[in-house]
Amino acid sequence: MDGRACGVAEAAKILGDKWTLLLLRDLAQGSRRFKDLERSVDGISPTMLAGRLRELERQGLLTRTTYNEIPPRVEYHLTDKGTEALPIVEALRDYGNRWLLSRPEPSDAVLSST
Amino acid sequence: MDGRACGVAEAAKILGDKWTLLLLRDLAQGSRRFKDLERSVDGISPTMLAGRLRELERQGLLTRTTYNEIPPRVEYHLTDKGTEALPIVEALRDYGNRWLLSRPEPSDAVLSST
Repeated sequence: MDGRACGVAEAAKILGDKWTLLLLRDLAQGSRRFKDLERSVDGISPTMLAGRLRELERQGLLTRTTYNEIPPRVEYHLTDKGTEALPIVEALRDYGNRWLLSRPEPSDAVLSST
Repeated sequence: MDGRACGVAEAAKILGDKWTLLLLRDLAQGSRRFKDLERSVDGISPTMLAGRLRELERQGLLTRTTYNEIPPRVEYHLTDKGTEALPIVEALRDYGNRWLLSRPEPSDAVLSST
């Protein structure tokens, strides 16, 4: 690098993290509670999940909404700034399906040689 | 997740790491020596660099070529499997330029409102 700021480096600082990428994958589906995310992000600990959510909120990629119920319900959802990061998740999905999974998820382009 | 393998998760395991993403960015330019990468990946330590290179080689995303010189010259370059991961780097660049840099890198689409 020549000292000029780099978009890849700035994005990798925030998003270059396995758990953060899996959170984005699941929040892409809509609002989620902490418990939902704990279940869907396989292997994440409550401490790691809380830390990643806090950081994404601080960076403006998600917001938390507290519903005035008993007990209070808290939901996380992506902001515009978070939604705009989803092409990165889709690029990971394409790559993973093509190069890393033996039996890929259903995709828009499946070629069979026989 | 429903237990089915997920392309995002598999890709995030290998590529969900800031240093790995910056290495891919720089190897996208062509073969590089260890010293080149140490310089271009701002802030990486030799130990971290060696570890990331070893892991990318193990995963088949890069190869190392040793040239029979004195002293021997070692160069790293992306395989097809590594090159195919570059759309992820480009998605990060687009996102970083648009949302994280105040003065973005030259890009193919720059809109001015005045």
